[in-house]
Amino acid sequence: MTAILISEVGPRDGLQSIDRIMPIEAKKAWIAAEAAAGVREIEVGSFVPASLLPQMADTAALVAFAGTIPGLSVAVLVPNLKGAELAIRAGARKLSIPFSMSETHSLKNVRKDHAAMVAEIGAIAARVAQEEDPPHFEVGLSTAFGCTIEGHVPEDTVIRLAEASIAAGAAEVGLSDTTGYADPAQVRRLVRKVKAAVGDARLNSLHLHNTRGLGLANALAGLEEGITTLDASLGGLGGCPFAPGASGNIVTEDLAFMLAAMGYETGIDLDALMRVRAILADALPGEPLYGFTPDAGLPLGLDRRTA
Amino acid sequence: MTAILISEVGPRDGLQSIDRIMPIEAKKAWIAAEAAAGVREIEVGSFVPASLLPQMADTAALVAFAGTIPGLSVAVLVPNLKGAELAIRAGARKLSIPFSMSETHSLKNVRKDHAAMVAEIGAIAARVAQEEDPPHFEVGLSTAFGCTIEGHVPEDTVIRLAEASIAAGAAEVGLSDTTGYADPAQVRRLVRKVKAAVGDARLNSLHLHNTRGLGLANALAGLEEGITTLDASLGGLGGCPFAPGASGNIVTEDLAFMLAAMGYETGIDLDALMRVRAILADALPGEPLYGFTPDAGLPLGLDRRTA
Repeated sequence: MTAILISEVGPRDGLQSIDRIMPIEAKKAWIAAEAAAGVREIEVGSFVPASLLPQMADTAALVAFAGTIPGLSVAVLVPNLKGAELAIRAGARKLSIPFSMSETHSLKNVRKDHAAMVAEIGAIAARVAQEEDPPHFEVGLSTAFGCTIEGHVPEDTVIRLAEASIAAGAAEVGLSDTTGYADPAQVRRLVRKVKAAVGDARLNSLHLHNTRGLGLANALAGLEEGITTLDASLGGLGGCPFAPGASGNIVTEDLAFMLAAMGYETGIDLDALMRVRAILADALPGEPLYGFTPDAGLPLGLDRRTA
Repeated sequence: MTAILISEVGPRDGLQSIDRIMPIEAKKAWIAAEAAAGVREIEVGSFVPASLLPQMADTAALVAFAGTIPGLSVAVLVPNLKGAELAIRAGARKLSIPFSMSETHSLKNVRKDHAAMVAEIGAIAARVAQEEDPPHFEVGLSTAFGCTIEGHVPEDTVIRLAEASIAAGAAEVGLSDTTGYADPAQVRRLVRKVKAAVGDARLNSLHLHNTRGLGLANALAGLEEGITTLDASLGGLGGCPFAPGASGNIVTEDLAFMLAAMGYETGIDLDALMRVRAILADALPGEPLYGFTPDAGLPLGLDRRTA
């Protein structure tokens, strides 16, 4: 069985997209319960200024908490060198910086053009390398499949900036469908091209949104091209507040069901995973939660089907 | 570009699953508008007794109406020889009989075991062959991916009954995920095995439900195994009233978007297709309509992406 890592990004991508602030005790309960259900990596927050995203103000405390859970990879988003410094001090083991392939979106989102972003990536890589036990540093190539402002994003741009990110010292790049524009043929093509450009081991992850319902089809296309890490958000909570209309990550529960049914090894106990939703429902009353599998329930005889 | 046929089954599978009866004028407007949007095949109804499904009582009139639309393939469901007789008299050009791979479900649904169903298929094939210009006769292998009563359905059963259906005179078999149990690996495997057993040209279609959110991923797996016809329901209306929990066909709008984005040729004008939803919303006020693409809108620059 091939092992696939589901990286839960709900505490970061999900919570940053809603106005309410989830109390830290609820966040801890969520992280602990998902880890106990077998989820091996959780992006617990983002080191952005609390003035911009007050929902993420407790990220350092969450990194410390999650770091006490055995076997859990603790990931965070960092927007720049300053965020990376905070993440390293907090003890995060995986740092991801979003790098928008749409220069218009990049300027609007972080006020940096592509050249400035590559310089920032270089500075973070250098800072990470100073650590005795350096955390993993990854660049998330966001709006890689299209942008709500620019529309089409040329594949050559993505390939060039993926190469520049690795050259600047990132350990890995990931492809992000920030806007929910991707289709399975495009996912296959771009994964193949970027892997060919930067090396097979330098692209392992996809961050997909389900904006147009194609999220799991796109995940499937990625799996078939050798992707081994898929971001997802419990209950489909999420989206990027700076990309209008970019609603909802793919749903962790549906993804975990699909992978289990297909015979992939994720380490996740599906029934335990479904029960984690109650923590979200309690902590965020009235907040819409998505997912088809939680509504329908698991198929009768699921284990036999994969045998 | 590969041509893919989207077969709209909403007027049959969608409408039979809701209690309200859509007035025939609204059904005609729906069928006409979808055909005008480029949909090339529509399953307009079912020849079951009106006492069982009053929603389908006007099927003969709809066949006559749809038959006047140039280039439209007019399909109907027939539960048995009697239904086939009615369908032939009405002038339907494509007849599908559902054949449940779960014998328990078959007995519950149509009170026939597998042997009786194969005999019925043989009788229909013989009747169809009497026609000077015989309609196309297909067997839909339902609950092929699992059953809400029996759970696991052995693949060998599906293969054996697919072979029996063809031997009994059906022109073609299709695979139906009546219960929303299918996963992409299973779709690939079963499509490959059934094609190998009955001949490549004898299995071309999949009927998928989105019960657990995997509908489009399953469609993708089918496409990659040579499937060229995909059933779908506008607004995701639908489900089988005799298979508890078997909610919702895959959504025509999302499927049509996925295929267009991937560069498949469907003949469908996406904007015109989206507008057909208004007919459903007007005729069935308050009825839930599904679909991500209609909510999110088409991506900016879609045409350029597929160029």
